[in-house]
Amino acid sequence: MQRIGFLGPEGTFSQRAALIYITDKPSELVGMSSIRETLLAVQHGELDLAVIPYENSLEGSVNVVLDILAWEVDLHIINELTLPISQTLMINPGARWQDITEVFTHPQSAGQCRLFLEKQLPQAKLYLTNSNSEGANQAKKNGITAGAIGAEQAAEIFGLEVALRDIQDNRNNFTRFVVVGKNPAHNTSDQNKTSIVFSTEHKPGSLACILDIFSLWDINMSKIESRPSRGKLGRYIFFIDIEGHMTDPDVRDALTMVKRKTTFYKFLGSYPRVDSDK
Amino acid sequence: MQRIGFLGPEGTFSQRAALIYITDKPSELVGMSSIRETLLAVQHGELDLAVIPYENSLEGSVNVVLDILAWEVDLHIINELTLPISQTLMINPGARWQDITEVFTHPQSAGQCRLFLEKQLPQAKLYLTNSNSEGANQAKKNGITAGAIGAEQAAEIFGLEVALRDIQDNRNNFTRFVVVGKNPAHNTSDQNKTSIVFSTEHKPGSLACILDIFSLWDINMSKIESRPSRGKLGRYIFFIDIEGHMTDPDVRDALTMVKRKTTFYKFLGSYPRVDSDK
Repeated sequence: MQRIGFLGPEGTFSQRAALIYITDKPSELVGMSSIRETLLAVQHGELDLAVIPYENSLEGSVNVVLDILAWEVDLHIINELTLPISQTLMINPGARWQDITEVFTHPQSAGQCRLFLEKQLPQAKLYLTNSNSEGANQAKKNGITAGAIGAEQAAEIFGLEVALRDIQDNRNNFTRFVVVGKNPAHNTSDQNKTSIVFSTEHKPGSLACILDIFSLWDINMSKIESRPSRGKLGRYIFFIDIEGHMTDPDVRDALTMVKRKTTFYKFLGSYPRVDSDK
Repeated sequence: MQRIGFLGPEGTFSQRAALIYITDKPSELVGMSSIRETLLAVQHGELDLAVIPYENSLEGSVNVVLDILAWEVDLHIINELTLPISQTLMINPGARWQDITEVFTHPQSAGQCRLFLEKQLPQAKLYLTNSNSEGANQAKKNGITAGAIGAEQAAEIFGLEVALRDIQDNRNNFTRFVVVGKNPAHNTSDQNKTSIVFSTEHKPGSLACILDIFSLWDINMSKIESRPSRGKLGRYIFFIDIEGHMTDPDVRDALTMVKRKTTFYKFLGSYPRVDSDK
């Protein structure tokens, strides 16, 4: 039975993504205490796979995931899944949400609900936690002046009540999760996506040159994200997703050229693509 | 006397940047409680200028700043300054840093010290705060089991001792701050930088087309950063910095073309460039 890790504890959005992923696959789900711990456990063989949040349509990429995949581990993305995310305000039984003065939540959820917090709860102090479930736990402990933001299922687990649903700044809120493991996935789909990370020479036109390679081979790009290269300001590494599988001749040829024109290049995986128009 | 806002309270890196900026300019510094509040106060005329953290060489752009400049205010960047950032571990007098079990800090500083926290303080629980100064204040209140990470000057303000300096994951750590106001800056330097934000059509090659415009006019790009466009996954807006001033004929012509080829375009300012090779 495969062991699959997620950012725990019970009641996180990551747990929900992991539960959806393992439908029909006999698996043991393991709640981990941080994203780094989860990814390193896969690298060291203590877990077979991990389900990890990768990017959100409001708050953007999860920086720590990008940095660890680029620099600290050697893992492959073998699948992706996209979940609609409804951020829920949870309070203690008997409380009124308008009266709370403390809100506990993870920074990603806080980032997705910035306008709500500013406009509807200007008096409330924000306490950032390591997971939304920990936030719910803290809200429970702090009583009727406290609330938590996160996935609705945390309310039941921690004995809170749902006060408001869909409090994120835009109803259209999705998080894309990726499944990572030590071995690449086989090509089993005719709709695939390939993820790479690279850096280019620090001179004019070097990023344009890479993007032109994809244009030349008519390859669609569905994600581009820059991260600092951890040295000097103004030097970046780029995370790009393209349509197609590493074993498609055009993708293979384009990536051969990309590799030639970059100073750092890492293949992160080819995997079945989920409806890309979320 | 001009009123200049920064993310307070006393002892933050933003305060240090603001103090450096106002050398020789008679000014009143005003500590604000959030970055949004600071930028909105400039927009509404309650402050003349604000000094705001924009990007860090380890942790990347400050998402909330990019989102507010793109969507919520109509302000101009009129200056930039880059500071070396030394993250400091501060503890209560009489404590041993190896024994602390709680660390209080802002998410940006936590992101810059991820490896240190994981390797040197694996037993310590991380509590995220709204500013580093608030973290130092919390560490003081929580006694010898608690520590804070932030700017060294917070130690004196909050009665803590410096246990370790330069604990960020890479000694080479810089934060770039920008000064924003309601009116554009005059062209007073021969070394300038121009910042824009835009989005392109969702079709292959549309970002490559924009970057090719800068190549065509031989304009150097010193920053590119993508942010989700707050609607669908896979749609982005791009923040780009180029060398040169809006009033330079080449920059003017290139940006005229960029404007024509983008679906959303906003000019964020032309301002004197600081040594770009930090």
